[in-house]
Amino acid sequence: MDMEAKSCNNLTISKIIIPTLVSLKKEQKTSLVKVGNVVFGGSEVIVIGGPCAVESEEQLFETARSVKKSGAKILRGGAFKPRSSPYSFQGMGEDGLKLLSQISKETGLPIVTEVMDTRQLELVASYADMIQIGSRNMQNFPLLKEAGKCGKPVLLKRGLMATIEEFLNAAEYILYQGNNQVVLCERGIRTFETTTRNTLDLSAVPMLKHLSHLPVIVDPSHGTGLRWMVPDLSKAAVAVGTDGLILEVHFKPEIALCDGSQSLDLEEFTNLMSDMRKIASAVGREIL
Amino acid sequence: MDMEAKSCNNLTISKIIIPTLVSLKKEQKTSLVKVGNVVFGGSEVIVIGGPCAVESEEQLFETARSVKKSGAKILRGGAFKPRSSPYSFQGMGEDGLKLLSQISKETGLPIVTEVMDTRQLELVASYADMIQIGSRNMQNFPLLKEAGKCGKPVLLKRGLMATIEEFLNAAEYILYQGNNQVVLCERGIRTFETTTRNTLDLSAVPMLKHLSHLPVIVDPSHGTGLRWMVPDLSKAAVAVGTDGLILEVHFKPEIALCDGSQSLDLEEFTNLMSDMRKIASAVGREIL
Amino acid sequence: MDMEAKSCNNLTISKIIIPTLVSLKKEQKTSLVKVGNVVFGGSEVIVIGGPCAVESEEQLFETARSVKKSGAKILRGGAFKPRSSPYSFQGMGEDGLKLLSQISKETGLPIVTEVMDTRQLELVASYADMIQIGSRNMQNFPLLKEAGKCGKPVLLKRGLMATIEEFLNAAEYILYQGNNQVVLCERGIRTFETTTRNTLDLSAVPMLKHLSHLPVIVDPSHGTGLRWMVPDLSKAAVAVGTDGLILEVHFKPEIALCDGSQSLDLEEFTNLMSDMRKIASAVGREIL
Amino acid sequence: MDMEAKSCNNLTISKIIIPTLVSLKKEQKTSLVKVGNVVFGGSEVIVIGGPCAVESEEQLFETARSVKKSGAKILRGGAFKPRSSPYSFQGMGEDGLKLLSQISKETGLPIVTEVMDTRQLELVASYADMIQIGSRNMQNFPLLKEAGKCGKPVLLKRGLMATIEEFLNAAEYILYQGNNQVVLCERGIRTFETTTRNTLDLSAVPMLKHLSHLPVIVDPSHGTGLRWMVPDLSKAAVAVGTDGLILEVHFKPEIALCDGSQSLDLEEFTNLMSDMRKIASAVGREIL
Repeated sequence: MDMEAKSCNNLTISKIIIPTLVSLKKEQKTSLVKVGNVVFGGSEVIVIGGPCAVESEEQLFETARSVKKSGAKILRGGAFKPRSSPYSFQGMGEDGLKLLSQISKETGLPIVTEVMDTRQLELVASYADMIQIGSRNMQNFPLLKEAGKCGKPVLLKRGLMATIEEFLNAAEYILYQGNNQVVLCERGIRTFETTTRNTLDLSAVPMLKHLSHLPVIVDPSHGTGLRWMVPDLSKAAVAVGTDGLILEVHFKPEIALCDGSQSLDLEEFTNLMSDMRKIASAVGREIL
Repeated sequence: MDMEAKSCNNLTISKIIIPTLVSLKKEQKTSLVKVGNVVFGGSEVIVIGGPCAVESEEQLFETARSVKKSGAKILRGGAFKPRSSPYSFQGMGEDGLKLLSQISKETGLPIVTEVMDTRQLELVASYADMIQIGSRNMQNFPLLKEAGKCGKPVLLKRGLMATIEEFLNAAEYILYQGNNQVVLCERGIRTFETTTRNTLDLSAVPMLKHLSHLPVIVDPSHGTGLRWMVPDLSKAAVAVGTDGLILEVHFKPEIALCDGSQSLDLEEFTNLMSDMRKIASAVGREIL
Repeated sequence: MDMEAKSCNNLTISKIIIPTLVSLKKEQKTSLVKVGNVVFGGSEVIVIGGPCAVESEEQLFETARSVKKSGAKILRGGAFKPRSSPYSFQGMGEDGLKLLSQISKETGLPIVTEVMDTRQLELVASYADMIQIGSRNMQNFPLLKEAGKCGKPVLLKRGLMATIEEFLNAAEYILYQGNNQVVLCERGIRTFETTTRNTLDLSAVPMLKHLSHLPVIVDPSHGTGLRWMVPDLSKAAVAVGTDGLILEVHFKPEIALCDGSQSLDLEEFTNLMSDMRKIASAVGREIL
Repeated sequence: MDMEAKSCNNLTISKIIIPTLVSLKKEQKTSLVKVGNVVFGGSEVIVIGGPCAVESEEQLFETARSVKKSGAKILRGGAFKPRSSPYSFQGMGEDGLKLLSQISKETGLPIVTEVMDTRQLELVASYADMIQIGSRNMQNFPLLKEAGKCGKPVLLKRGLMATIEEFLNAAEYILYQGNNQVVLCERGIRTFETTTRNTLDLSAVPMLKHLSHLPVIVDPSHGTGLRWMVPDLSKAAVAVGTDGLILEVHFKPEIALCDGSQSLDLEEFTNLMSDMRKIASAVGREIL
């Protein structure tokens, strides 16, 4: 499948090649990806909420119970954290996974958590309902191959420097191993602009859905890096046609060990859910 | 007024200085900018529609009558066109201005049109209700200064490589000359991604409104360069909080001399207006 | 003339169209551009030196005499300055041009100075030996057209986010008006990296010389924004095959009104000239 | 250690924090990194040559013997290849490592080869004299940690959209585990420009050496993606002060399974070595 974009002056022609397994065939609809009883790719806009990192039982459990009440369908939380600096908090490891599993049973929320290392994949997959491959690992090809064999649905985040074509080829690695339960996530790209942490590329949502049958969600927390801006971009993501959102929520953002500056507090999240329901309705979708 | 954005790891601190005349003071609301009887900055989301370039009486008049009927409040159309290549159509010049003026009288739509040269400013201002300064001239300082003295409201488009800080400083040039009737326009920035013509930076809308009192509108036509994608991003722009949109509409996009590939046809524009009204309502705004 | 760059995986094909007047024909050599008795495009690497802005007689004259002594062949100095902020020093205007003219007569150095406005072009051209069109005006098409008619050689700087193709099309505007005395200048592009003011794209030198017959020079002062780094990148520019350099030199960088942080002092410039001569010789060129 | 870059107008201040183990202390010189009897960081500019991927005995051995003869001090060759598409050649695996080991014994050239997976590290380290961590894995933190414990020197390539600060933090991960034998490699960053595969950021060389004590080398093959441009940028890299180069060389680039379009043939490499020796001499360095 080829896609061409011509500029006004016919000076530039971009031709990209979409690999076969992820490409959208004629008459095809968005594929459904199931995580427990949650379904990505249908009319419902799925919201994933939770803290950047699992920090403690209290932090995780209070946050989880609250996001569940506000309408989140999946719980997020990192146990193994990719951090730019070796001196930053690196995550609770398996203890974090155990806490996630415990609160998942209590609340009924499936959990999604990141895996960074092929050696951890079996361990993470034994606790998680959905495996997350983060931006920095979007082209970690051995990890993509293993994720293709792990038997769990995969949330694949776009690399902060990845073209649409590279993103879809990364997903192809997973499908090529026999796992077609992949959800794509736009989470902001790196540009020259520095007032926001990244530049959230919302045009990636219709573009990915134009080229591929995989569901696409948006991460406005990393996309902006700014807590006060997250609601506006979340609403825009629903309007642009996203199949879901992943949002950082913390019961006390001020004391978060990671990404506090971009995490919503519990009340902000509740209000945002309510606002997003109106937009979803305006575009013929729903947030239950 | 200072604005700080800290990354997760406290490794990067961006500090920008917002110049005084454009900066948002405490308790201040968005300023109102009036173009004829149209007001930017209130609860109404203003839609500007029309062709990229004025090409002929038939093309302009048919398009203008139709966008008026669908709810556009201002007519756009270029008479002097900035084109990357000297071999591309450069615009009809004053003849184009005359056609714009004629159809403006008939329809009652105020007109906005681009000026590229300090020597043309008086001429353009004698026909136009609002002067547009395009992306390539965002840092054409003599032109900004003259626009500050011309007595007409100014639509200032963000340069395709301009930071938020540079954009606000460009606006400051205009206000500094005594003209505070300025509307800012996000129209896509240049990034590494090539499947879209530019990357529409919707986070610029809340950021600009956070830092400045000036109204902010969005141009999804240049922002995406792709006709089929314009409706999705237009809806997202309304959801994110824009004060208006500027959209390329052509009665026959297939034969347009400029930007046909990103222009909506008359029916697409009508449908989009209807869809945007629902979103506007969902965010407490209105499109009349 | 077409140019194709294929990636390793055949996933991306970039095809650009080089406009006819600037394109390099088979067997063609670099064109010679003459500024007074100075020739760009031959075996000599031409060095342009001088302050960012003309600030005073003492500043300009001391700097000019010194750069002449060290081997600079052309004097630079801005009288009309494009500044991001309206509150920054905007240049001395015609008084600056007069000082430039005066010291040019004394030293015998031709002068190059920037023009920002079509209305100033005649004035600037009456003093200058070479007209500079700055980065922010690379796509100021009315200015390019006038520069094509002004009868003086033109130094055209690459826009800070201009592609090679856009850069060559901008030059085409000048040649199209009958002026083929154009020198191209790479001066750094805008990227995500913030430790340097811009990212100096030295690959642009062989690329431009591969595609076009116009001479190409490099501006490491704006390209890096860091005084201590200018010598290293200047030497690299000579090694990569530049036809010249334009360097900011100030008799007292600490008190410069503009760009002091990237200006060499007189001694640094002298030392750099000596170092560059060795590199020039190593690549079969010369700095006299 | 802090580093500040102020723009002309004092509008932007970038402050980055260099982590402690990699940072350059006062009076400190570049550290020496030893690979067999080859030393990075002294007056000699070390050239690494060889094919992108090991493809066959004939291809590797002929290329290796030739680059040795021309003055290369280390042999490169990939056995495990990171490829954007799952349908591209993925490398010969351990068979490739065995061929590398065999020709290393014959020629006396130490070998550097890439590792992509923590599970492969022990295997790769048992054959290689130097471990390469590629651009796509620059922030593969588990791999960095293991590389810090593997007992072999590490060649760490800059991510194609990594800031200088992120690059140095990635190196810190390795040193933090007790391995200070790290060489940094600039290999081009991703920008908006598409005529070259990447934009080689030669200013990164003096910047990294200004901030860190680690040796820095340059990869003009990936930096440009264009075979004909590699010599020019290689010479520029020597002039800018690099401690070494890594170059793709293939006995028959036309039939290479990977990166043929950016690989030098044997004669081109020989000629380039000769040209670089002159530049090295002009900047007080040497290529033996």
